[in-house]
This record gives sequence, C-alpha cells and structure tokens, in this order.
Amino acid sequence: MLKVGGKIVEEEDGLNRFLADFSQIDGTKILVHGGGTLATKMATQLGIKSQMIDGRRITDAETLKVVTMVYAGWVNKMVVARLQALGINAIGLTGADMNIIRSVKRPVQEIDYGFVGDIEEVDAARLEMLLKQDIVPVIAPLTHDRQGLLLNTNADTIAAETAVALANMFEVSLIYCFEKSGVLRDETDETSVIPVIDRDMFYELKKQGVIQGGMIPKLENAFRAIDSGVKQVIITKASAIQGNKGTLLLR
Amino acid sequence: MLKVGGKIVEEEDGLNRFLADFSQIDGTKILVHGGGTLATKMATQLGIKSQMIDGRRITDAETLKVVTMVYAGWVNKMVVARLQALGINAIGLTGADMNIIRSVKRPVQEIDYGFVGDIEEVDAARLEMLLKQDIVPVIAPLTHDRQGLLLNTNADTIAAETAVALANMFEVSLIYCFEKSGVLRDETDETSVIPVIDRDMFYELKKQGVIQGGMIPKLENAFRAIDSGVKQVIITKASAIQGNKGTLLLR
Repeated sequence: MLKVGGKIVEEEDGLNRFLADFSQIDGTKILVHGGGTLATKMATQLGIKSQMIDGRRITDAETLKVVTMVYAGWVNKMVVARLQALGINAIGLTGADMNIIRSVKRPVQEIDYGFVGDIEEVDAARLEMLLKQDIVPVIAPLTHDRQGLLLNTNADTIAAETAVALANMFEVSLIYCFEKSGVLRDETDETSVIPVIDRDMFYELKKQGVIQGGMIPKLENAFRAIDSGVKQVIITKASAIQGNKGTLLLR
Repeated sequence: MLKVGGKIVEEEDGLNRFLADFSQIDGTKILVHGGGTLATKMATQLGIKSQMIDGRRITDAETLKVVTMVYAGWVNKMVVARLQALGINAIGLTGADMNIIRSVKRPVQEIDYGFVGDIEEVDAARLEMLLKQDIVPVIAPLTHDRQGLLLNTNADTIAAETAVALANMFEVSLIYCFEKSGVLRDETDETSVIPVIDRDMFYELKKQGVIQGGMIPKLENAFRAIDSGVKQVIITKASAIQGNKGTLLLR
C-alpha cells in the first residue's frame, strides 16, 4: 500500500524512476497518487483561480472538473499505461468506480471547502477481488457520495482508510512517499531523519515544535491507521521505497 | 452493449435521461462513450487547435493530454458517479486499465494521425470477470500499446471490437445511439428511418448515394460485428434505446 505525493508524479524522470521501483515491490500492492501541483497549473491555464486554505483546495464546480480531469484522467491513466509497460496489470480507479470509496460532502462550518469528501466507507471486498487476480489498483484522490457527486478527497486519507479497510484481510504496510527523506528533526537537513517514532515521541516532538505544519495531519492519519490494524507505516523519500529507509512509525 | 455518441454526453438533460434509460436495461451491459465535442471545447480553452480529417482528430501530444483528461477523467467519471446514483455498479475503464484493449499506434501513411490507436486485442475474459459480478464497464475511447503510450481510439470501433470479443461468451446486441432516429433515407426527415437493413441493401443504398458520409464507416463497423458473431446491431436515437426503434441490421 503506497501513497505517492504530488511532486513526484509531476516530474517526468522522478515518476519513471518511482514507477520502476514500485513495479519491483513483491507482493500485493496498491498505489494512491496525488496531482495537486498539476491541477493548479491546469486551473491557471484555464483561468480558474486556485484557492488553498491550510494546504487544502477549495473545490468549486469548475475546480472539481479540473481535478477530475487531471487526477482521474491525465495522471491516473498515464500511471496505469506506464505500469502496464512495466508488466504490472494496473487498473485506475476513483472511489466512484465499483463504489469502492463512498464519502459525504464535507459540511460547511467556518470554511466551505466545496466539493470535498470525507470518507465514510471503503469496500475492501471489491479491492480484494482485484488484488487476488494480481491486478494493481491505482487510486486517484476522488471519491463519490453515491448520489451522483464526485468529491475531491485528500490522498493521504484515502491511503490510510484503504489500508485500514484491508487490514482485516492482509498484513498491510502503508508507505507515504514524498520529496523528503522522512520525518526530519530539522526541516533543512535531509540527514536528520527520525528513524523510529511512536505516539508518545510524536506528541513530545509536536509540543517542542520539532514536528510542525503539514507533517502533523500526515502523522495523525498514520497513527490512526496503526491503531486500526495496519502493521506499519513508513514515511520516506519516493526514491527509497525499496530500502527500508525513512521514518518507521510504531504503535 | 451500448455505444453512446458525442453529442448526447454533452447535454446535461439528454445525458441524465439517457443514463436513466440505460440503467433500466435488463441483463449484462457495457457502455462505450465518446466526448469529442467537449474535447474540442477544452482544447480551445487551452489554446490548442483541433485538427480533424474526415471527422477524425489529429492527436498530437498536447491533444492526447486533452482527450485523456476529458474522456477518461471528466466524462467517464461523471457517467460512473451518476450511474452509481442510479443503483448501477459502474466502473470506468480505458483500454489501458487491466490491459483490456491493446492497440498499435496507427502507422503514418498519407496522413499522420498522431497518437491514434488501431485495436489489436480485447481481453474478453477480464470484462467477463466484471460482468459476472454485475459490474457495468463504462469505456472511454482510449486504448494503449502496452509500451506505455495511451492512444486515442474511435469509440464506434471500440464498441464493435468489444462486442465481437464478447460474442463467444454472450449473446451480444450492439446498439449505436446517436442524435438521429436511425439510418435515414432522407437526412433531413427524421421519419424516414430504414427499419431493417442487410448488407446487400446497404451496398445498393450506398451506390445510390442515399447512405453517405459518417454513416458509411459506422455501418461497415456494424456489419463486421455481425459477421463476427454479434447477434444484432441497432442504430437508434439515444432517447429510444428501450423501444426497439431505429434501424436493425441483419446479416
């Protein structure tokens, strides 16, 4: 179970290297991808302004169209076609396909996020049906409400919820790949990776201000996954997915 | 087995009516859709010129990106989400997904069509696996060459080739839906539908100039499907898919 972040899917060379590494991983696997930077670029080309709050995209009707085109169309199918060329029988999915991930439109509170989904249910049985046939699901960060609406959905959360749903059937490792080498003690120093972290240490480092920003929700997602039966979570650089490097999260 | 033409997927009301009718069809079914007019609009918005020769799109790298976004992203996932709301367990696919349709890039002869695919193989077994679980494939008009390239592929041809591939396993009816009531004796008169046509009659009407333009390759595709085991082909209006109206093609 692998989640690959936005920036990696957006650089031609990095993506090809990543997919080659991914294709070499033994055993049953799923890839969840992002594509935010490409969506922002496409929105700009179409004259649509991207509005972000705390790193989250406000998704109006026009923006939903853009992210659906970019995530489920361009990025997802490009990744599927390249994996097929690497001998991996990939299938591209959103949550709407086979109803694998059902969500609800996030209620409007202080902020109206627009067409953004909060996950309610992952259909692990359908995914298992594919996995048992050596088919590799490639999931774009979109879900649906089963009332006909597609909803933009955080890819980290999709990866965590899918990992949890499959934890009854498989021994699941969840790997978050991004552009840094792991959870860092010093954001400017790639050699300052924290090799192992548990929840107490996380709270302590958060209190000290060592862990901050976007890493906090990522780690919260990750610890929730571990608490819900996922065997391990690794946060690492995309180029190091085979090496057991990065930060290992323990219960 | 239903192929729905470009114009129907592009009008909000027409599409919703069509999907409601489609959801009511009994038995195993597949939907193949187009999206050409929306792709042309999107290309224009992005400042990319659409070049057509005999109704076929010249697909350069930028155009491939646009059709992948529009066909596999926007149109495909919107249709899947709406079918889910109608209680149909739809899954959106391109030919790259599970390697269901492999093609070759059309060789350059007088015209260089660019990233356009000619179908080589449809994996009927994978489609059957889905159909037997009451999953309804929704196919976007894109295939792949298994070397990593996505290829823009004629939706009429995808429908015909898929129908042929499934004819060993199922009794297949292929229905081409478009904006007219069927094959017309007089293109300006919607009441002039030819109710039944066989190959001899087709040749005769083609010679007389009664059947012309884009209808000729459509009928050639259709007769090829019938010759290869498809039980019947119907050419009809999208709003009449339940009524056994339109033109019935016989061997």
